[in-house]
Amino acid sequence: MSTGLAFSYESRAQRVVFGAGTARTDLAAEIERLGCARVLVVAAHAERELAEELTSVLPVVATFLDVRQHVPLETATAARALAGTSGADSVLSIGGGSTTGTAKAIAMTTGLPIIAVPTTYAGSEATAVWGLTDAGRKSTGTDPAVLPRTVIYDPELTLSLPADLTVASGLNAMAHCVDSLWAPNANPMSSAMAVAGIRGLRQALPEVRRDGSNLDARAAALSAAYLAAVAFTTAGSGLHHKICHVLGGTYDLPHAPTHAVVLPYVAAFNVPSAPSAAALLADALGVPDPVSGLVELYASLGAPGSLRELGLSSDDLPEAARLVAEAAPASNPRPVGRDDAALILRHAWAGDRPGSDQLEAHR
Amino acid sequence: MSTGLAFSYESRAQRVVFGAGTARTDLAAEIERLGCARVLVVAAHAERELAEELTSVLPVVATFLDVRQHVPLETATAARALAGTSGADSVLSIGGGSTTGTAKAIAMTTGLPIIAVPTTYAGSEATAVWGLTDAGRKSTGTDPAVLPRTVIYDPELTLSLPADLTVASGLNAMAHCVDSLWAPNANPMSSAMAVAGIRGLRQALPEVRRDGSNLDARAAALSAAYLAAVAFTTAGSGLHHKICHVLGGTYDLPHAPTHAVVLPYVAAFNVPSAPSAAALLADALGVPDPVSGLVELYASLGAPGSLRELGLSSDDLPEAARLVAEAAPASNPRPVGRDDAALILRHAWAGDRPGSDQLEAHR
Repeated sequence: MSTGLAFSYESRAQRVVFGAGTARTDLAAEIERLGCARVLVVAAHAERELAEELTSVLPVVATFLDVRQHVPLETATAARALAGTSGADSVLSIGGGSTTGTAKAIAMTTGLPIIAVPTTYAGSEATAVWGLTDAGRKSTGTDPAVLPRTVIYDPELTLSLPADLTVASGLNAMAHCVDSLWAPNANPMSSAMAVAGIRGLRQALPEVRRDGSNLDARAAALSAAYLAAVAFTTAGSGLHHKICHVLGGTYDLPHAPTHAVVLPYVAAFNVPSAPSAAALLADALGVPDPVSGLVELYASLGAPGSLRELGLSSDDLPEAARLVAEAAPASNPRPVGRDDAALILRHAWAGDRPGSDQLEAHR
Repeated sequence: MSTGLAFSYESRAQRVVFGAGTARTDLAAEIERLGCARVLVVAAHAERELAEELTSVLPVVATFLDVRQHVPLETATAARALAGTSGADSVLSIGGGSTTGTAKAIAMTTGLPIIAVPTTYAGSEATAVWGLTDAGRKSTGTDPAVLPRTVIYDPELTLSLPADLTVASGLNAMAHCVDSLWAPNANPMSSAMAVAGIRGLRQALPEVRRDGSNLDARAAALSAAYLAAVAFTTAGSGLHHKICHVLGGTYDLPHAPTHAVVLPYVAAFNVPSAPSAAALLADALGVPDPVSGLVELYASLGAPGSLRELGLSSDDLPEAARLVAEAAPASNPRPVGRDDAALILRHAWAGDRPGSDQLEAHR
């Protein structure tokens, strides 16, 4: 029989409420809709005031504020303990990816339903992927129990996101889209969402960079970030995410800026071997050459340009290359040996202009 | 507060297995995966041989063959009775939209899980929408219990679909996409899938029309039909589907050809009042004017051109216009009074070339 187009795809049940002001107007009703009445709030210290304001009328039984990047196991243990002692019947996360990640760590072991109110473009709220860090190594996995049952997207909550975090978080969403085009379970559904997400982000991000108080642009970016996250969760982690997990989990690099630095280098590496993904990417970016298109978009946004400036030591590059080569998906459109990984990382560390010619020339 | 982008969206859990040969290789395992062991097969008489071949190794307890278009209530009652007397724990539908619709009628009252093996581009297998016809009137509704738990898409099963049915069924899928751009719950997710579906269909349908045995084109059309159906089920029924339900349920017009005739007239009516949907449609069709683009695509495929040739009597037009005006969504981008409905139907009945200028000029 023919090989041809073949894939499997699983959609998961999730309710999304999107609109300016919805975190204030819809949260109580959505918690009630889930039949919940004892809410454990998870929010980072920096968002404590926002969380208090949004939850003042809700049946809150406890609040967990000790959110940390990449969800260290100790953080997860403490949050799970609080869920137990408080008798919570639901977890309400208000914040970015690390906050949602902490709520997921609770859901993993308790099965409590999560209501997520994102304040960034991280997208964790739309995926069944969890991540935990233990002894300097990040583990990730997929578990339907950690997928938030309800997500309330209120673009007003993103208005105060500073310009640098806006860009880094938006480009994290862009990485979800682009990496899903060649991820192990890429399929026509994930690619449809990725293309729409890329188009939305490349139009909205320059606007929100220019004027962070532009609510329409904020809404467009947030909705594109949702498309990005759903594309990612159905397609799985591609090479880009495997690299970022190594860099974030092992070397404690900041999550979103790392994604912003790495993506153009992964695109430069994969594009020559992935013609149909390259065509979708070029079309979504509205440019003839997708790698140049990404590089120019990233530069215009003032994205961080190198792993060096994020604090990675060049001494770590050989070990990182080994870990990346081990973690790279077997289905990547181009095989990733340790030399390939070293090449990608070296360019990304130095901040060289990413281009497929250059990556080829250095081989 | 700002109005701006606002929507709610619910994704539902469904597993899709897509690939040439999968109906032969994967069906037993997928039934087992659902924990089922007593299968009620639903297939039309015309597909009896195919159904027998695909199910020969399965634990079949009964087979229902009396499938009829638009699922008359008597058909539903008979099928439900067979589900009861046979002690089935699952329903396996093998066929087009009417076959899946019959399986859904069973699931509505019994809660039995459906495994769907589509043989056309109807898309019913990807929606939670049911339809029943009683005393000449079609009712439709949405119920999560009727959404098939698993869909097996095997493009080989579509190879024998005759050219005229291929076109009619493919344009039914096209109507799902286009109508979802302005349907009541249209949202960024449904529009992303609709755009990808339109693009896939406009590329694949001319190929499958030219050579029905082109398996790659068949696979592309089938996967686009899935995108179309998911877009439709999340966006809801727009004006086009309301018109087709009236025509199919009340005047017994054939489902898929009716969709092929009606869509360009609905597009001509709505496009001037729906600029962002029009832009998405034009982009997906790869043309500057989306109405002309649809008309030319439909003509090139040899689509049926008028409601008259499908058997509608001109005497029925006034009543049909009244029913359409009653059924039209309040959220349609352009209000639909009885005169508007009469205008759309009169042009569609006569087979006039659809164009927004013409529809305006006749007002």
